Amino acid sequence: MVLPALSVLSTVLVDVALIMVVSKLLGRLMAQVGQPPVIGEILGGIALGPSLLGAVLPASQSLLFPAPVLEQLNLLAQLGLILFMFLIGLEVQPEQLRGRVPLASRVSLVGVLLPLLLGILLGLALEQVAPDLLPHQNMVTGSLFMGTAMAITAFPVLARILKERGLLAIPLGQLVITCAAIDDILGWLLLAGVISFSHSGSLAGAWPALLLTGLWALVLLVGLRPLMARLERHYRRKRQLDPALLALVLAGAILSAIVTEMTGVHYIFGAFLFGLALPRYGPLQRRLQLQTEQLVVTLLLPIFFAISGLRTTVSVLQGPTMLLALGAVLVVAIGGKYLGCWGVARLAGLPAREAQAVGWLMNTRGLTELVVLNVGLSLGVIGPALFTVMVMMALITTAMAGPLLGRLGYGRIGARSPQTPLPPATL
Amino acid sequence: MVLPALSVLSTVLVDVALIMVVSKLLGRLMAQVGQPPVIGEILGGIALGPSLLGAVLPASQSLLFPAPVLEQLNLLAQLGLILFMFLIGLEVQPEQLRGRVPLASRVSLVGVLLPLLLGILLGLALEQVAPDLLPHQNMVTGSLFMGTAMAITAFPVLARILKERGLLAIPLGQLVITCAAIDDILGWLLLAGVISFSHSGSLAGAWPALLLTGLWALVLLVGLRPLMARLERHYRRKRQLDPALLALVLAGAILSAIVTEMTGVHYIFGAFLFGLALPRYGPLQRRLQLQTEQLVVTLLLPIFFAISGLRTTVSVLQGPTMLLALGAVLVVAIGGKYLGCWGVARLAGLPAREAQAVGWLMNTRGLTELVVLNVGLSLGVIGPALFTVMVMMALITTAMAGPLLGRLGYGRIGARSPQTPLPPATL
Repeated sequence: MVLPALSVLSTVLVDVALIMVVSKLLGRLMAQVGQPPVIGEILGGIALGPSLLGAVLPASQSLLFPAPVLEQLNLLAQLGLILFMFLIGLEVQPEQLRGRVPLASRVSLVGVLLPLLLGILLGLALEQVAPDLLPHQNMVTGSLFMGTAMAITAFPVLARILKERGLLAIPLGQLVITCAAIDDILGWLLLAGVISFSHSGSLAGAWPALLLTGLWALVLLVGLRPLMARLERHYRRKRQLDPALLALVLAGAILSAIVTEMTGVHYIFGAFLFGLALPRYGPLQRRLQLQTEQLVVTLLLPIFFAISGLRTTVSVLQGPTMLLALGAVLVVAIGGKYLGCWGVARLAGLPAREAQAVGWLMNTRGLTELVVLNVGLSLGVIGPALFTVMVMMALITTAMAGPLLGRLGYGRIGARSPQTPLPPATL
Repeated sequence: MVLPALSVLSTVLVDVALIMVVSKLLGRLMAQVGQPPVIGEILGGIALGPSLLGAVLPASQSLLFPAPVLEQLNLLAQLGLILFMFLIGLEVQPEQLRGRVPLASRVSLVGVLLPLLLGILLGLALEQVAPDLLPHQNMVTGSLFMGTAMAITAFPVLARILKERGLLAIPLGQLVITCAAIDDILGWLLLAGVISFSHSGSLAGAWPALLLTGLWALVLLVGLRPLMARLERHYRRKRQLDPALLALVLAGAILSAIVTEMTGVHYIFGAFLFGLALPRYGPLQRRLQLQTEQLVVTLLLPIFFAISGLRTTVSVLQGPTMLLALGAVLVVAIGGKYLGCWGVARLAGLPAREAQAVGWLMNTRGLTELVVLNVGLSLGVIGPALFTVMVMMALITTAMAGPLLGRLGYGRIGARSPQTPLPPATL
């Protein structure tokens, strides 16, 4: 075998190529069976890790992913994640909120609070009965984190599902996409709270980080608005993406990511906020997406999935404790989100079928959940076994939306038009 | 100062943002004074290194570029270079050769051989009089390398200069672009020879590496042609860039780069060959360029310039030996290339003014030279001082083309049309 002779750089390059191909081909396969491609990409990452490749060829892990190589891959994954979160922020369309806010905010709020509370309770219970899963020293942080992880809805995946099924054209889809946008913001706020709480260990200690981050958000969204508008005007005048302009925008996203990491939250928030701060609906936004998204989503983001997959060991899912834990997580995640959303929708007078669709759709956790879980794992809030359980939950809640919608009669209505800009193609 | 508290990852990210902005803003400044942007990007890299930032703020180098950070930056630079060489290969247009080959090949050949021979002689002389610059143990390799470095013409920079001045529409420009394309291939062949020679230490030992690389080129350019044509048909049918297709193409470029590294040449050749092997003039080629080039050229490639700049110490250019060496290098590089090209052009009956323009244009060394020099430095064929001398030569030969053309009356004829696809925007 030729691999042992490869240098660190060559091994990193082999890994990048391998990860890209495996995740995109599995993503494509999933798309062909009517599932979101993100399922395939997560599965691809898991397949390259100890769960499959490592189980079949144990030597593969030390050959392909030795420590110095992993460190380099992690840099690429973080860079990819930062740029991706920037693109996600760039894509948020506040106009989608207009008019539908009253009902959507109630659905969102209850749909976040119910799984949050149930997740906190489950976290506290796990700390008692299975301290291996959720170490006792992180008691409050651990249960807060479990709650947050349960409350997630993945905006990008959901947007794609709704678009592909032609549901964005009907009130159901418009309601759900509005709820998902609110959930997205609520989810990131919760995560920011948990992270700063985990650093300080107390609610009082968590405030400065959140306050600083809030201040930075104000600087970006209000203070720098005139500057951002100038960027847009500059672009409209030139009618092409000046390399210096692109460099400034990308550097801004990266520096904003570092600011929020330094305030004690996480890189991803700053990158997301910077995307949010750029002018919406203009040609600059579309151009930025066109010329950066594909490479970020094809070359860099799959490395993030692979790193998640390397941290996932499906074989831990055996024995009564683990299976019970998985079952409990699924019940809380699915049940909490479904009951919260469905209940409010029914109370507001939505027909049964539509309320059920809202409940299933809002369960989609996709990539957002994976980002949250990796943060939790690297903070030491959850251990590797619980990480694996939660990754399974993310996969299952994302994969079940399609078939359940089909059973409710919301099949694939029409192909999406190639003209309308799509959310990132992988998700 | 807040920098010391930053993690490796944050420092790498700060560097990436800083490098991107400095190099693109300087590149833009250069474009505004009528110089190729690549001059600004190289200067930006030098400014961040020991020559300027390190001289003014010595602490900056250990804060911004400590060893573990440099290692990570180097990965990004290499990945950028590989993807960039792939894009360069993708851009070669063999049709440009048609019809103009007889004269162009003579101009190219003499324009490569003369500086090659003079460079070898200069190398041998330097080994005698200044062994610090060119270590004696690499005697043959060192002089072969000097010859190769003198013989370079930078196709991408030249293409851009010709296009910006509207010269591609007249026979002079068409002749020069054809010569540059031939020079490009000759230059890479020479470099491949020098690298395999430096590994084996003898001409006989260099053959296997070249033979294997040649075989790989045949596999790609002939053996895989049907497969490549299928990619193009697949793309035409879908009319959008399937993420799986993009992943396959990029993975192919990366794996091809590793193959040529393993045959004993260098990553860059395999990436270039893979670009060359993809179908020309089709929509797939344009789409690949549109969706990958900007990010590669804005985010990753400037890191390559910065790493070159960190290896450059302008302050070594003092004392009679160094200034004599710089003078000799400039005389050989400029004189050899100019006389070779101008002479053949005159002999073929070109008017004096056109022959002079050919001589000055073919002197443009730009990015290609920097790639060659970095290979030489990392192989230990040249030392850091000679590296700096040669970088200066690359800058001067690239910067002088514009003013000299202006004096010959080939001013900026017309702005380039935004419709025609351009060579990478930085170069």
